[in-house]
Amino acid sequence: MPTSNTKGGIPIASEIISIGTELLLGNILNTNASYLSRKLAEHGLDLYYITSVGDNPERLINTIKEARQRSKIIITTGGLGPTSDDITREAVAKAFNVPLKTSPTMVKQIEDFFHQRGKTAPECNKKQAQYPEGGRLLINPMGTAPGFMIEDSACTLFALPGVPGEMKAIFEDKVSPELQRYQKNNIIHSRLLRVFGLGESQVESILHDIISSQTNPTIAPMAQTGEVILRITCKEKTKEKAELLIRDLQEKIQARIGNYIYGYDDDTLETVTADILMKRGKTISTAESCTGGLLAHRLTNIPGSSSFYYGGIVAYSNDLKERVLGVKKETLRKFGAVSEEVAVEMVRGLLKIYPADLALSITGIAGPGGGTTEKQVGHICIAYKTIDEEISTAVKLFKDRMQNKEAAANHALHLILNYFKKEDA
Amino acid sequence: MPTSNTKGGIPIASEIISIGTELLLGNILNTNASYLSRKLAEHGLDLYYITSVGDNPERLINTIKEARQRSKIIITTGGLGPTSDDITREAVAKAFNVPLKTSPTMVKQIEDFFHQRGKTAPECNKKQAQYPEGGRLLINPMGTAPGFMIEDSACTLFALPGVPGEMKAIFEDKVSPELQRYQKNNIIHSRLLRVFGLGESQVESILHDIISSQTNPTIAPMAQTGEVILRITCKEKTKEKAELLIRDLQEKIQARIGNYIYGYDDDTLETVTADILMKRGKTISTAESCTGGLLAHRLTNIPGSSSFYYGGIVAYSNDLKERVLGVKKETLRKFGAVSEEVAVEMVRGLLKIYPADLALSITGIAGPGGGTTEKQVGHICIAYKTIDEEISTAVKLFKDRMQNKEAAANHALHLILNYFKKEDA
Repeated sequence: MPTSNTKGGIPIASEIISIGTELLLGNILNTNASYLSRKLAEHGLDLYYITSVGDNPERLINTIKEARQRSKIIITTGGLGPTSDDITREAVAKAFNVPLKTSPTMVKQIEDFFHQRGKTAPECNKKQAQYPEGGRLLINPMGTAPGFMIEDSACTLFALPGVPGEMKAIFEDKVSPELQRYQKNNIIHSRLLRVFGLGESQVESILHDIISSQTNPTIAPMAQTGEVILRITCKEKTKEKAELLIRDLQEKIQARIGNYIYGYDDDTLETVTADILMKRGKTISTAESCTGGLLAHRLTNIPGSSSFYYGGIVAYSNDLKERVLGVKKETLRKFGAVSEEVAVEMVRGLLKIYPADLALSITGIAGPGGGTTEKQVGHICIAYKTIDEEISTAVKLFKDRMQNKEAAANHALHLILNYFKKEDA
Repeated sequence: MPTSNTKGGIPIASEIISIGTELLLGNILNTNASYLSRKLAEHGLDLYYITSVGDNPERLINTIKEARQRSKIIITTGGLGPTSDDITREAVAKAFNVPLKTSPTMVKQIEDFFHQRGKTAPECNKKQAQYPEGGRLLINPMGTAPGFMIEDSACTLFALPGVPGEMKAIFEDKVSPELQRYQKNNIIHSRLLRVFGLGESQVESILHDIISSQTNPTIAPMAQTGEVILRITCKEKTKEKAELLIRDLQEKIQARIGNYIYGYDDDTLETVTADILMKRGKTISTAESCTGGLLAHRLTNIPGSSSFYYGGIVAYSNDLKERVLGVKKETLRKFGAVSEEVAVEMVRGLLKIYPADLALSITGIAGPGGGTTEKQVGHICIAYKTIDEEISTAVKLFKDRMQNKEAAANHALHLILNYFKKEDA
């Protein structure tokens, strides 16, 4: 039995085996393992290993045999297709020392599937009706390839397909209910706090004493493009207890950096901004130069965005800034296209096109070209205009074009959010 | 010595060990492992296992010991920071059965680093000057934490930091030259062919005989949002030989579906479209409704896009379609905002705003709301207008909002690409 530092309950070790040579060539990311990791944590199971292994019988059998010696729960993904490369069924049977069995019902289903399409089922497809004796098939609601499970005194193994949608469907339908049997011990519960406007080292130094003295829940800061995520992780017997402890800690953090926390968990700047706009029945419009439509794209990713987003102008050329937004030639000449002055004229012009509650503009040097000694790559100007305010600001961002577009859009969203938050107060 | 099906040369088995509890919680994707997988393949090394393991000494030591028994090259990432959670140095030393040694030069560097910032180096940071006896430190050009390597009769292990930028910097600088010693056997070389306009099953059925008869190179089709990628993989002694075999196979494929192949390897529809526009000195503009700025965003991701992309209108509301693009109220009423008629009026209005060589518009129902029995979610209309053509088309896409935006932008880019390709001929 593996050791564990959980308090109370018997820790159940689990592991994931990802099967497929494509994972070892680096062409695809192992998103299945991330999904299953989160799910196992939600079930309160300790995950100790994730192993990726290719379509090689010897190595796969050894990997499963070893997992059997150290983990109570094993989940495999991949290798359940009809071709000769698909060796998971055989490997599991060998590792569990049982023969393969064929399900006549499943053979019939496969034959019917092909028959309905006016074809005869290829012999190889019937392979998909096989499973290790003593186990049982797990019906796939989304495809022909079923998964299977097998249990003996050492462990329980669930074999799922590699196609993410099918893997998730079988996990939710069949595996999740089975795992509840083991859910006697601690649950790992976590919450993300999303911070904008402070760097990772600033967050760490402000919260240093809290971070270093915490053991359960723990706090881990992670830097992302232009934002910092604080992950609070708690291990407790019940969700209620974990949530209580997380809430206590969250309040301590909020007392120090609450102004910089814009959201939680899966929130993004655009979802939070959209929420406040929809709640207050407010509308916005955008005029983008260097972000080139990214801000509009992120806003319109939100279902129902037509209720708060009028639309926008991607004014990439000076010509368009003049002709559509009415920016003066003189202003462009005197201050340059990347200037707070031009940003302000852009929002004024935008408001004339239609009367949104807030019009916002962005102009900047995304890079890699276009920088000067005075205004370097990453120099971004943002302005917004409402009935009572006309504000412009300049920020210095990064060296990389994509990061600059992303971070400039983040800054813009944060300005919109803060304006309507302030109105709320 | 592990078995391998490479021809000629002694196969060198390698494996990757990713260290860090965060990998087992599913919050982050293991992009380090993908990067290293590709690099090992480029060096002609067979990668057999990728293992993710948490910050637990016992499990980490066991994982390294086991790797030593089966692989000649081991690369670890993570666990090299200054805190007590960072246990890679100790674990490697134990698995190699040697004590830890401290580099006085590195201690001095760490002290200097803090000194320059007016601080005293915390005791814990000096941990980063340690490495297993018999090994040596690998200087980190991007941060304070160095990596290290150690070699004995069984294997060579490289320990790299977990921060992707630092990991890559040390790999390129220090590890890559070391790996060239082992580069006696076959190189894995691959090429991606990017297909637009055919589904995965169509590609498979057209190429069935080629796919099933090929052993080296092999062909694997992979479906992505609205496109299909064919991966050709070849194992040969030299890059030249591999490229020759890949080219032969590529020609066979091109003879059948050449019209649908728009690019190779890292090409995207936007990079290929941008290339042809820049080469021909042509300009385009866009009017987007349902894609909400995504098309503009993707075009302006290309450095230098200001030379071919004038700008665009994100005409999300009917009001904006009328007032900025001059779409007639009558057309909107009679055919609806999602109609080829409205798409055509949008490009006509767009061309009046400025005379780009090609003006393109998209209007559609991205979902989840807005569908009717007649026009369901995923119903998208695209039009473009040039000096000699005015074309509109309707496509039926998916159920998901994000997929619909992405795929609609793909269709638009493909139309632009084909127009200018045709002009080329």
